[in-house]
Amino acid sequence: MKMRDLGEFRFINRISKGLINRTDRVVRGFGDDCAIMKASGGMALLFTSDMLIEGVHFRKEQIPPDNLGRKALAVNLSDIAAMGGTPCDALVSVGIPADFDVEYLDKIYMGMKSMAAEHHVNILGGDTVLSPERLVVSVAMTGEEPEDEILYRDGAQPGDVIFLTGKVGASAAGLDLLENGREFDSKDELLSAHFDPRPHVAEGRIIASSKLASSLIDVSDGLVGDLGHICEQSNVGAEIEQPLIPNSETLKAYCGNFNFDLERFTVYGGEDYVLLGTISEDSSDALAGMFKGRNCSYFPIGRIVEGEGLTLKQSDGTARKLGASGHDHFRTKPNS
Amino acid sequence: MKMRDLGEFRFINRISKGLINRTDRVVRGFGDDCAIMKASGGMALLFTSDMLIEGVHFRKEQIPPDNLGRKALAVNLSDIAAMGGTPCDALVSVGIPADFDVEYLDKIYMGMKSMAAEHHVNILGGDTVLSPERLVVSVAMTGEEPEDEILYRDGAQPGDVIFLTGKVGASAAGLDLLENGREFDSKDELLSAHFDPRPHVAEGRIIASSKLASSLIDVSDGLVGDLGHICEQSNVGAEIEQPLIPNSETLKAYCGNFNFDLERFTVYGGEDYVLLGTISEDSSDALAGMFKGRNCSYFPIGRIVEGEGLTLKQSDGTARKLGASGHDHFRTKPNS
Repeated sequence: MKMRDLGEFRFINRISKGLINRTDRVVRGFGDDCAIMKASGGMALLFTSDMLIEGVHFRKEQIPPDNLGRKALAVNLSDIAAMGGTPCDALVSVGIPADFDVEYLDKIYMGMKSMAAEHHVNILGGDTVLSPERLVVSVAMTGEEPEDEILYRDGAQPGDVIFLTGKVGASAAGLDLLENGREFDSKDELLSAHFDPRPHVAEGRIIASSKLASSLIDVSDGLVGDLGHICEQSNVGAEIEQPLIPNSETLKAYCGNFNFDLERFTVYGGEDYVLLGTISEDSSDALAGMFKGRNCSYFPIGRIVEGEGLTLKQSDGTARKLGASGHDHFRTKPNS
Repeated sequence: MKMRDLGEFRFINRISKGLINRTDRVVRGFGDDCAIMKASGGMALLFTSDMLIEGVHFRKEQIPPDNLGRKALAVNLSDIAAMGGTPCDALVSVGIPADFDVEYLDKIYMGMKSMAAEHHVNILGGDTVLSPERLVVSVAMTGEEPEDEILYRDGAQPGDVIFLTGKVGASAAGLDLLENGREFDSKDELLSAHFDPRPHVAEGRIIASSKLASSLIDVSDGLVGDLGHICEQSNVGAEIEQPLIPNSETLKAYCGNFNFDLERFTVYGGEDYVLLGTISEDSSDALAGMFKGRNCSYFPIGRIVEGEGLTLKQSDGTARKLGASGHDHFRTKPNS
């Protein structure tokens, strides 16, 4: 069988047995944004890694090199944020074509260093190897967190409020704009959302240290995809109020301009790297208050319900089931 | 400037500034086999990563897939061993072509799981992405060690005995055999040395916990290359006694058969993944005794001297300076 016939998620299931040899060390292995190991004094060590490949995850002729460096760290920082953790140290392994411009690499590293500095993270080495055709950037990152504050995907309860920590959809619109070569007056905001997302590390810490939330994830696959992960792992369903999904005026203008359905980006988009969580109704206002005090955004967008599946409720009172987005790089044509 | 004009080591120097934002956490950053971070209770956290790319570090038609999986973990285990640490947890990120056989991947993971089980290491996830042309395997691994036991490259002192924990040269001979399609009766031993090296984790712990040694590294670049790292970072020179360098009868037979100079493999070879260290003359016998009691091998091969550079002393009393091996994938043609 070929990988394109199996796909990413079935491959992960296939190889995920027999990987743990010291259960005493492990708080959580596979299945969340980070692996979690026990540390001393009630603390846990968070561990995550992400690989970006040229032509698959980015195009060199599109993304400014410093943004590529920032994003390579941001996706890992966002994985730490999605557990509520504090990021600590990173290793950066790069595969580089022999004819690659060193000045371009300098700019990638400038971006990585600026993102690392903003989050007080160390870059402590890694590996530098030849990659004949494509630039490959693989970042591994550690984080730390009190073990009793860690938020997983599987804690959502029926009745919980679903919330977002930021607006969604602009990143996917930025990608759409690029891939289709569209011209648009305010395109810089959409491109910036796609190329230089801000990982919501501060928001994650507020949520986790409050001990009020029941589940947390970052929006990388899109609202449907990531809320789907929470619902599947928590054995619950969800209802989203379409008018409550936060999005920017620029995204609305983009959709108006090209006659796109807003949901295409807000519901099915991805890579916004804001946080998506659930919290009991009794605690939602308290968390909202903490966010307000720290100048962060808190958007309740719906409810966890019994059963399964995601429902989108429109402002006119109609409701419909949302299908999975199901994007899988192995099953779609790569950008070459 | 292109990467092929700069090379790996000058690139690393070029980007190695401005990477540390929390000095309080760091015991050592760049420049050794692992990065070292402070942990509580006098312990340190070790952190290392390595990337293997198809056609550069291995050829799919040559290496048995389970051996590829074992080796991907072994190179990281060896980095932990080279500090004297105990390996803990790994993340495995893979870039996979869409038309790659899943059964071949199964065997790679079987190999990774067997190596992880042998060293009581957990594999806790990672990332699975599309890589259009080549298989990419990037492993990040943590380890732990009492901070006061850690062995670095920069502690060698004039007068110290230089030792190896195993035979060298067979891995490079295995590669030579493969790359040139040579036929040889005992080729399996050489191929096994190249495809399935044993990381000397147990030996590393004996050395570190004894607190007797002054420096330690693993033999990945070859004896000249890795002893060169110790000498440069310790500001010393070294004299190796050629007849003392341990090597196998099979390697001798291979060299006899094809009229090769043994030094080509023992001195300039690489990827043996045994450990190379230094220790004061007064302590060398004590460490040798500990090795004997644990059924491990200890081979004194020379002395650290004042000054710089490496000298190879032959059995006939002649001596000559050894040049750097200087292998750099960016400056040589890759296997495509």
